[in-house]
This record gives sequence, structure tokens and C-alpha cells, in this order.
Amino acid sequence: MIIVLRLGHRIPRDERITTHVALVSRAFGAEKMIYTGQKDSGMEESVKKISEEWGGNFIAEYSKNGLGIVKEMRRKGSKIIHLTMYGIDFNEKMEEIKKIEENSDILIVVGGAQVPIEFYKISDFNLSVTNQPHSEVAALAVLLNELNSKNKVFEGKKRITPSENKKIIITKN
Amino acid sequence: MIIVLRLGHRIPRDERITTHVALVSRAFGAEKMIYTGQKDSGMEESVKKISEEWGGNFIAEYSKNGLGIVKEMRRKGSKIIHLTMYGIDFNEKMEEIKKIEENSDILIVVGGAQVPIEFYKISDFNLSVTNQPHSEVAALAVLLNELNSKNKVFEGKKRITPSENKKIIITKN
Repeated sequence: MIIVLRLGHRIPRDERITTHVALVSRAFGAEKMIYTGQKDSGMEESVKKISEEWGGNFIAEYSKNGLGIVKEMRRKGSKIIHLTMYGIDFNEKMEEIKKIEENSDILIVVGGAQVPIEFYKISDFNLSVTNQPHSEVAALAVLLNELNSKNKVFEGKKRITPSENKKIIITKN
Repeated sequence: MIIVLRLGHRIPRDERITTHVALVSRAFGAEKMIYTGQKDSGMEESVKKISEEWGGNFIAEYSKNGLGIVKEMRRKGSKIIHLTMYGIDFNEKMEEIKKIEENSDILIVVGGAQVPIEFYKISDFNLSVTNQPHSEVAALAVLLNELNSKNKVFEGKKRITPSENKKIIITKN
């Protein structure tokens, strides 16, 4: 099981970015996204609506205490991966992490403007997806894509039939 | 050479998402991002500032005519990849695209709320990174990460020394 922790959500600045973090988490097979910062019922609702339409039980869940979530999951035996541009190249650790994934839950932490140094210290891995500034959405997607060798199957009201050159969407009533 | 075309930029709604599309394009080795929709000097400036600090010549460049860009690049022999949740699984085409990349320039097109059907028809590949709704930032990152087997090296004023548990940033004056 993979859970994503998104730190320091700000309204309105991060509304769409955090929504994208949530949808990426869902599409690539994570169980849920927990987020800290400002509680955002509108964002939670958007994510819930996508799950209702497209399948699965994925939710965005608010927490006041990100470090508390990390500590609790560590106590339960989860491994913590913090994605940061300051970390070491994720490719160096993928083999190790894939083995861990077979036996342990994984918490993936993504920032957040300024991630407190405590998160660097408590994480099992501080990993970068390039050491250049880009996007937490992108870093998360690349990591999750590597972790999930096959796509998760969703049973939703809406479903796409992949096509070479058309938009084919099937809607169940 | 890879160029990214981002369609239908809206101010203020897409400001940060399009910035992330640009920074992902840069970090994963694309030459530039062309965007359509509303011209956004603030976003262009943010992207330019990142290039100045972190290296390279990457820019965000406005165009009024996305389909014109596609047609012009096709004429010059580029291959067009349109990323869309309606497309076929990108994994099925990666081998073919990696071969194309050795000899041709590639234009990667990302939406955009509603991408006109013309883009589906004119593209060489309509590819999905999962058929679930998530993020153009994520889809682009996953594809570019697969295309660029080794990270691009930037020579900027700022540079990170990858670390297991610290934030190490080196700034040249």
C-alpha cells in the first residue's frame, strides 16, 4: 500500500497543484493522499467526484500534523520516501525500494514550499527526480510510474477505450 | 531535439500548471515550451529566471496558432506526440519512439481543457499515460523521463549536491 503525504497546502495558490498531486496518486495506484497546511473542502470534493465517476475509493484527507503522520506510519513499519530536489537520484534506489514495496507500506512525502529539515532526517530515503527545480506533481508521477509496473484497473461509471486517433469514452448509468 | 507545445493557457487558472509544464520540459531536457491561449508575460518571466539561475537556455514562447506550429514542424520532418488520456498506452510505443528520437525532432503536445479533434488527427501518436484523469504535468514528466535515459547536465549559478539527508546548494556569484 502506498500513501502520499502532501505538505503545506495553501489556498488559493496550491488548489490545482494539490488536486493534480491527488489525481496522480490515485491514477498510479496510491490508496489516499493526506495533506497538511490549509484545509480545502473544495479540493477534497473535486477529488471525491473524480473517484465517484472514474472508480476506486481514493480520497484526499486533511491532517494538521504531517510529522505526526510520518512518525505514526514509521511505528507501524512503513518506509518513508521524501521526494526533494536535494535528494539523491531516485534511480539509484529503485531496486531497493521495489523490494521494500513487496513487504511494507510506503509513505511518499512531497512539499510544500519549505519542507522542515525534520522530514529530511526522519525519512528512510530523500530522493530526487533530477536535481533541477520543476514540479512535485512530476516527481511523484515518475516515482509512482516506476513503482507500479502494471496499471491499476478502475471500475468506474466512466471508462476510456484507448484509441489511436479518437476520443472514446463509455459512461455507465 | 524535443519541443513541448502547451495548448490553451488561461490566466490566472493555469499559471502554475503551465509553469510546471515548462519546468518539467526544461528539467527533462526539452529545448523550449511553446504555449497558446492567453499570453502570460509573468509566467514567461518566471521560466526565464529559473533558466538564468539554474542554467541552460530554456524559454517559454507564446504562439497564437498551435495547429500552425504542429503543421510547420511536421513539414520540417518532426514527429508529433499528443499526450491525451484517450490515447493508447505510451508503453506500447516507447521502443518505436526511442528509435524516431535518434533521427527526428519531436513535438510533444499537451492540453488544454478541450483539445480540438484536429490535433488527434494530425498527430503521429496519441498516447496516454494511464487512461485516468490526472495531470498534463505528470504525463509529460513520465514520457520525458522514459525518453531521456540520462539526466541533462545544466551549468547554472545554482547547483545542488545530491545528499542522503541534507539540503546542499552551491551558488556561484
